[in-house]
Amino acid sequence: MIKEVICTVVCVGDEILYGQILNTNVQYLSDVLGSMGIKVLKHITIGDEWDEMTKAFIQAEAESDLVIITGGLGPTPDDLTKPVLAKMFDSEISLNPLALAEVKALFESRGRELNELNKLQAHLPERCEMISNRVGTAPGMWFERGGKVIISLPGVPFEVKVMLEEKLVPKIKAKFKTPVIYHKMIRTVGVPESKLAELIRDWEFSLPPNIKLAYLPNLGQVRLRLTAFGDDKKQLEAEVEKEIARVLPLIQKYAFGYDKEELEQVIGNLLRKHNLSIALAESCTGGFISHRLTMVAGSSAYFMGSIIPYHNEFKDKILGIKPETLHKFGAVSEECAKEMASNTRALFGASIGLASTGIAGPTGGSDEKPVGTIWIAMDDGKEVKTRLLQLTKDRSLNIQLTSTGVLYMLWRSLTEKNLV
Amino acid sequence: MIKEVICTVVCVGDEILYGQILNTNVQYLSDVLGSMGIKVLKHITIGDEWDEMTKAFIQAEAESDLVIITGGLGPTPDDLTKPVLAKMFDSEISLNPLALAEVKALFESRGRELNELNKLQAHLPERCEMISNRVGTAPGMWFERGGKVIISLPGVPFEVKVMLEEKLVPKIKAKFKTPVIYHKMIRTVGVPESKLAELIRDWEFSLPPNIKLAYLPNLGQVRLRLTAFGDDKKQLEAEVEKEIARVLPLIQKYAFGYDKEELEQVIGNLLRKHNLSIALAESCTGGFISHRLTMVAGSSAYFMGSIIPYHNEFKDKILGIKPETLHKFGAVSEECAKEMASNTRALFGASIGLASTGIAGPTGGSDEKPVGTIWIAMDDGKEVKTRLLQLTKDRSLNIQLTSTGVLYMLWRSLTEKNLV
Repeated sequence: MIKEVICTVVCVGDEILYGQILNTNVQYLSDVLGSMGIKVLKHITIGDEWDEMTKAFIQAEAESDLVIITGGLGPTPDDLTKPVLAKMFDSEISLNPLALAEVKALFESRGRELNELNKLQAHLPERCEMISNRVGTAPGMWFERGGKVIISLPGVPFEVKVMLEEKLVPKIKAKFKTPVIYHKMIRTVGVPESKLAELIRDWEFSLPPNIKLAYLPNLGQVRLRLTAFGDDKKQLEAEVEKEIARVLPLIQKYAFGYDKEELEQVIGNLLRKHNLSIALAESCTGGFISHRLTMVAGSSAYFMGSIIPYHNEFKDKILGIKPETLHKFGAVSEECAKEMASNTRALFGASIGLASTGIAGPTGGSDEKPVGTIWIAMDDGKEVKTRLLQLTKDRSLNIQLTSTGVLYMLWRSLTEKNLV
Repeated sequence: MIKEVICTVVCVGDEILYGQILNTNVQYLSDVLGSMGIKVLKHITIGDEWDEMTKAFIQAEAESDLVIITGGLGPTPDDLTKPVLAKMFDSEISLNPLALAEVKALFESRGRELNELNKLQAHLPERCEMISNRVGTAPGMWFERGGKVIISLPGVPFEVKVMLEEKLVPKIKAKFKTPVIYHKMIRTVGVPESKLAELIRDWEFSLPPNIKLAYLPNLGQVRLRLTAFGDDKKQLEAEVEKEIARVLPLIQKYAFGYDKEELEQVIGNLLRKHNLSIALAESCTGGFISHRLTMVAGSSAYFMGSIIPYHNEFKDKILGIKPETLHKFGAVSEECAKEMASNTRALFGASIGLASTGIAGPTGGSDEKPVGTIWIAMDDGKEVKTRLLQLTKDRSLNIQLTSTGVLYMLWRSLTEKNLV
């Protein structure tokens, strides 16, 4: 078994600690490193402060084989990554002619003059190897000692991406022998994490030691991530597929897809494959289900349209809900949800009509129908299904969970008919 | 001057180190902590591993006054934050009756049964104070020793937000004396960052040294954040208000609100104040504008409803767009957008009708109407306004930017009539 390569990612920048920017570099770097079979041990973000930077860099070097630092390479005096690394590697900073030539060429290509600050960026610690940056003015640095590698990159996400993909991935692969890591994610909907864990407990405890399982829940969906470690990618893939084949029968009512597949994409593919169309009548969800469905490119092939009869009078006037229904049962009722689903189906001539009606909150509830009381319905021309959701006091959460409830009802119905 | 309060944010989760999710918690927490006058020293992310977690928690406690930990609180065996903290504080884990009552109540309100795993979540280290979580099953924990505070929260961003704002901000403020920092944010829409910077350049350079300005752009909106430092809150407020009074005349076409006021809330308040109502016809935005408007509690007072005639035939059949218009100009045209706005206004009997029609992408464009060609329109009963947006190749971005374009058109029109 090859020794694991351990990496720490260190980000430098006050703006990250102030919460002014979202740190996307760290996700991108982790994703690429993970796919190379490198284990990311830790992310650290520190401000532009000499002592904190020194401490973080030294600790990262001690704990890892590979350290990737982003940020702190600008031309202004608050940018300290270069002098801190020079000190740490006991190295003078001097003009690097190759770096100067590259930054000159970049400025010429943009029709701009090089100023003194830009020239400073071509000064590098003598101990490092320069990493070219064809899309920005700060070159990267590659230091090696004791079998370890420390890389410094600018903080601009686009520059990080170009330099990593073009220069660093091949260079890191040449330097380290990496083990194989294989990830696969099963996506589920309609089942809470705790119930899912009960359903698959025996399977989970019988997993081989080189396959790890993680539960990743979010707003009515839970992702199950399998991570396998070993030497041979083909073999790992086969092992993971074998485990997936064992677990799927236990969770087939909930498992809708893999990896980055979204529920609305999977539904779109099923509808398209079977030449079915849908229409919605959204009351309490106010357009959010339609939004989720139409975020999928090509959704116009099966999504006919929606009516959002937010004010009750339009449930009658536009959607043709019977006044008796509204009068007798109210707009938030199983009967109204049924009629909404059936009538929008008819109005748009769709194969399937879907509806939501409820009290999203935070006010508007009663003893009989508290905030979070929501009816959803689906008419597929053969039968009308309904479900009562009893959700929270939070408006945003209720809208989110209801949209997932409606999509789950649709997906279940498509799969129950063996349409998959 | 009061001693600075130093905070470290520790995130736990393999999924972050694998690059599978973007760590939004850390930005959100840093932003809130910063606004409380707390200095965030460091962000650390580590995996679900006992030794690494122990090391990180101990180091964070040593280096800071306040440690906030997110993640690792699920009910499954890979979730280790609770036992690691219990060990660190030399504390037994036992059933917390208050926590059990809360998780029971949550399940009952959702009409679900509690299982054994959920009950486990009500077990807490005896040494900690429970932090209620009204939107999820894992309560938070508050530990204190040696004048320091260590807080553990779940990893779900929505739960972090609710618990921080409702429970922790007041509790942290009560525990620590923080220096006075006064933030105020001016929110703008309809103007790019670079143009905004030009408009306010002279003002920006004349700001006193204790007031800092930051530009925070996001999806068609730019927030200008003023941060003032000092000893006296009243005085800082007065200074900031003076500066705001100086800058507002320069940007009055764009400045719609302050701090957390969302454009859709400001619009809602204006509509309500002047007893106006709106209806929409959304084609390329697929329900997203309606969703934004109905995320505002109480929006049913002015939002009548929407038609989403996604398939072109329903632009005619349901919304009554003239077949000649569709035939002669196409669905993506100024003429069609105008009719959509006028017809939805009439259909819902609303004061104002709004419409969007365009090519969201990534495919479906032509030489004449490339992807990103989008027409928006508004009919207020006196005139019909239109605007052509020429946006990007990215579907999601086009939907976002169009929704903001429509809301900006509505807001401008309400303010131009001196309705504010």
